[in-house]
Amino acid sequence: MLVHHLYSGGKDSSLAAWMLRKIGYEVRLVTVSFGTLDNWRFAKETAERLGFEHRVLYLPREILERAGEMAIKDGHPNNAIQFIHEKALEALASLPEVERVSDGTRRDDRVPLLDLPEARSLEDRFSVAYIRPLLGLGYKTIRELTERLFVVEIRESEKLEKADYEVELRCMLMERGIDPLGIFPKGHYQSRVMGWKGD
Amino acid sequence: MLVHHLYSGGKDSSLAAWMLRKIGYEVRLVTVSFGTLDNWRFAKETAERLGFEHRVLYLPREILERAGEMAIKDGHPNNAIQFIHEKALEALASLPEVERVSDGTRRDDRVPLLDLPEARSLEDRFSVAYIRPLLGLGYKTIRELTERLFVVEIRESEKLEKADYEVELRCMLMERGIDPLGIFPKGHYQSRVMGWKGD
Repeated sequence: MLVHHLYSGGKDSSLAAWMLRKIGYEVRLVTVSFGTLDNWRFAKETAERLGFEHRVLYLPREILERAGEMAIKDGHPNNAIQFIHEKALEALASLPEVERVSDGTRRDDRVPLLDLPEARSLEDRFSVAYIRPLLGLGYKTIRELTERLFVVEIRESEKLEKADYEVELRCMLMERGIDPLGIFPKGHYQSRVMGWKGD
Repeated sequence: MLVHHLYSGGKDSSLAAWMLRKIGYEVRLVTVSFGTLDNWRFAKETAERLGFEHRVLYLPREILERAGEMAIKDGHPNNAIQFIHEKALEALASLPEVERVSDGTRRDDRVPLLDLPEARSLEDRFSVAYIRPLLGLGYKTIRELTERLFVVEIRESEKLEKADYEVELRCMLMERGIDPLGIFPKGHYQSRVMGWKGD
């Protein structure tokens, strides 16, 4: 029972990976990259610290470009992040050896989050099972589990030392002369898992 | 980390209980009864076979009466089942020692299922965490996990040998001279967990 799990190195995707392993799945972590930066290395490093197999899945740079245009047009990144996540799930689900895909999306997330018809459509179009271990958990439950499990580093998301979609998106905007601070919410702290507690 | 888990003895609530235990919770199973039948015994028996602590939570019979009126008025049981489940969660969450409540509701269920505002409202009103381990799992995933874990007996739901809300509701309708077959969908097979595979 091998599952391919979209992984950023953050608390949520790490917790979801741990839950999948606990309920009997062999978990292969997959970090998406557009090849513009090598920030996927932060996820790989965390994956290794946690003892998971890790791979990088390169997506076409056109997806990043289109997401950038959405973020500029909207003045906020929500639709862009949602768009990239959907494309990442589709790319992963379309690989011939993939029967199960998963991610760390949560009940209380606004983006990225597939609604029920979108989740079923992903399963039907690619003949995969789509598993979201955190979807039925609220923030209290996620907090108590991650505090018990992980050593976590909290930083402002501007520091760019993480492996989620936002980093390459911000960088692309900067290269186009657009200040990402005008698009991404300010004071947005994000987390990176440094290892198991007690290790 | 004790969680009080609404339990019918069926596949879904058994799988959810197993997942909760796997991710580190101490799990106390709770079966709701209106005191009109003792069909909660089926859930208790399964709980014992699976090695979980089990209790019965009695709800006021007025809730069953009101649910029966809803089912008669609607001509189908969906709103009645949803109503009972909400009242069961509220009764459990209002107990002084309860900090976490959970159930076996699934992504693909229509009823009973709390939507996001309802789930958050339950958490806020009763200062509990509400955990739904199966909410992010589709039918394929639930099937592969239950087939791996449980010995399951499948019967027509008319047989009444199970401990979900439907049984007391059907019985109450029969006592009022109403044929439950006119209200509940026909050919509805339901499952009862008989033990762990390999035991």
